[in-house]
Amino acid sequence: MLDNEIKKVAVIMAGGGGTRFWPVSRMTTPKQLAKLTGNDVMINETVKHYEGVINREDTFIVTNRMQADLMDKVLFNEIDRKHILVEPVQRNTAPCIIYAAMTMKKLYGDALMAVLPADHHISDIREYERVLKLAFKTADEKNKIVTIGIWPTFPSTGYGYIRFSTNPIEQGSEVYHLRRFVEKPKVEIAKEYLNSGKYLWNSGMFIWKASVILDCFKKYLPEMYSAMEAIYDKLGTDEETAAIEEVYPTLEKISIDYGIMEKAEDVFCIPAEFGWNDVGSWDALDNVFERTEEGNVVIGNDGNGMIDCKNSVIFDNSGDKFIATIGLENIVVVQTKDAILVSSKDKVQDVKNIVERLKDIGREDLL
Amino acid sequence: MLDNEIKKVAVIMAGGGGTRFWPVSRMTTPKQLAKLTGNDVMINETVKHYEGVINREDTFIVTNRMQADLMDKVLFNEIDRKHILVEPVQRNTAPCIIYAAMTMKKLYGDALMAVLPADHHISDIREYERVLKLAFKTADEKNKIVTIGIWPTFPSTGYGYIRFSTNPIEQGSEVYHLRRFVEKPKVEIAKEYLNSGKYLWNSGMFIWKASVILDCFKKYLPEMYSAMEAIYDKLGTDEETAAIEEVYPTLEKISIDYGIMEKAEDVFCIPAEFGWNDVGSWDALDNVFERTEEGNVVIGNDGNGMIDCKNSVIFDNSGDKFIATIGLENIVVVQTKDAILVSSKDKVQDVKNIVERLKDIGREDLL
Repeated sequence: MLDNEIKKVAVIMAGGGGTRFWPVSRMTTPKQLAKLTGNDVMINETVKHYEGVINREDTFIVTNRMQADLMDKVLFNEIDRKHILVEPVQRNTAPCIIYAAMTMKKLYGDALMAVLPADHHISDIREYERVLKLAFKTADEKNKIVTIGIWPTFPSTGYGYIRFSTNPIEQGSEVYHLRRFVEKPKVEIAKEYLNSGKYLWNSGMFIWKASVILDCFKKYLPEMYSAMEAIYDKLGTDEETAAIEEVYPTLEKISIDYGIMEKAEDVFCIPAEFGWNDVGSWDALDNVFERTEEGNVVIGNDGNGMIDCKNSVIFDNSGDKFIATIGLENIVVVQTKDAILVSSKDKVQDVKNIVERLKDIGREDLL
Repeated sequence: MLDNEIKKVAVIMAGGGGTRFWPVSRMTTPKQLAKLTGNDVMINETVKHYEGVINREDTFIVTNRMQADLMDKVLFNEIDRKHILVEPVQRNTAPCIIYAAMTMKKLYGDALMAVLPADHHISDIREYERVLKLAFKTADEKNKIVTIGIWPTFPSTGYGYIRFSTNPIEQGSEVYHLRRFVEKPKVEIAKEYLNSGKYLWNSGMFIWKASVILDCFKKYLPEMYSAMEAIYDKLGTDEETAAIEEVYPTLEKISIDYGIMEKAEDVFCIPAEFGWNDVGSWDALDNVFERTEEGNVVIGNDGNGMIDCKNSVIFDNSGDKFIATIGLENIVVVQTKDAILVSSKDKVQDVKNIVERLKDIGREDLL
């Protein structure tokens, strides 16, 4: 880093629980700590994705208590324990981000932050690096919030959308003004969005200077700002944990999208395409892994037991029992060391109900 | 047994291999040695079915070498080792039956034989006993071959049929003349059979005197008869095994249906209904077990992992991994200690192809 260059950090939001990928994801092994789409657990894959742009040691993680110790163990044993910011209770994303931004201010005076989800898949790393560099450069030079939008490839009803102005901020720039955020649409609307060329998927990736986002908090969430400012002196000291535990439960439960992004003026947006997938549920593995001619995806298994199947997914996380599948269509089959999931693709999000039922019947060992 | 009463024996044909119920049935645990429809292995259930009519100790088993030792171990440890007739090679059912019939002649002079498959399900044991008694009485008094036909309940294309004369052999009798055997029909034909009231399913159960069936062999399969007659003296002696091993491979490979039944004159037939099912493949469990309101059959498992499934079968033979199923329709899920099968019901007979593939890839441990 040159003397006049501002620090670049990654802030990974990794507090989520894990029911959508049961039985692979568990309470103690949420999605980001599971091996789903790569050779390594997802959070390590996330770090690998940006290594060409942000130093690995400049990674910060916001997570909960239970996962904090596990984070310590994964992440290549190289992330400073102090870089793991522990939320005592979950208060949605705005508190999480102000906590991180104030920490950057305390540690570095200011910093360029890339706020990134812990558990998304990216297949074109070179293009991702290029977009991330452009986002950093824009956020640095323009002092704006920069979001990364993904060119939609199908009329998804599972993603939020970004409506962007199709005139770039400057002649020849790849950066555009963001007009508004849109909630997950119905399929007819999603089709219109797809065809219009004016809508992008909201990747949940934000790039800004700590000073810029803190100004936004001051303006749009002043109570939250004041509460956090009151403990600013204690950040990075021995008193941080106690102070955070006291202030956190008082913070408003609100998302960064709703609390800041939708209100902020002149947010920038970079439309991108780097093989992004949020891997939201088992059926999403379809779009992440190469499919066979019959549309099947087979992971962790040589597929020798598959006969006459179409558009199905086998995810074999233990390999101890031979999996034979015959004549299946649009079915997901998952094996772990202690459970088997067989689900139709279109109902696989109901795996959360299995998790609920396991609680009801006292099978905590499977949670 | 009164002095003037002829010996009644059961001859169970249990030589079959077991691919149709993989992964529960294996080379060393073929269907008849697996627990499928009852609390006990199928061959033991078969013995229990007729205990009210035939003494357990008057059971004979025709099987192959590999299974012979296992038969010895199941069958309640009560069947005389000499009652297990070992076929050195498989030659279809006619050789199997002449071997048994000559053994009866040797041991008892003559005997009433009930030739029974080892692995069929019967739910109404009282009615089965009644029909079996009637068959014995008829075979004894009339010196005829008696078959048991099952009233069809749906247009099955998986069973052979019996066309019977709808006039009973005597006024008021439940016994009829058999007209002809019919191979497995196409579905249109099967529908006609069902509606006509003149066709029955061939249960593969035959009742006759040893002397009567031996006369038929003499007449319709004279070469086979001569070959077996030549070693008759050695049956029941220390030389039996060697003699059988020599003669057996020379016998014609032919079924009893084709070799004798279709040619024999004046075969009798008793139409019956005692909850019979040959349990030919996984999807047949449907007709054997009670279904839930949604049409599901769940065996060996409390069904707690089932959400929103219809007309599906879960057969949990090991219980070590929790089985969660979501949104399935017409799917069979089987767990054993070392394998998982997931198949659409209409393709489940292709499980034989899985077994072939396991051979190809050298997974003999799973056969």
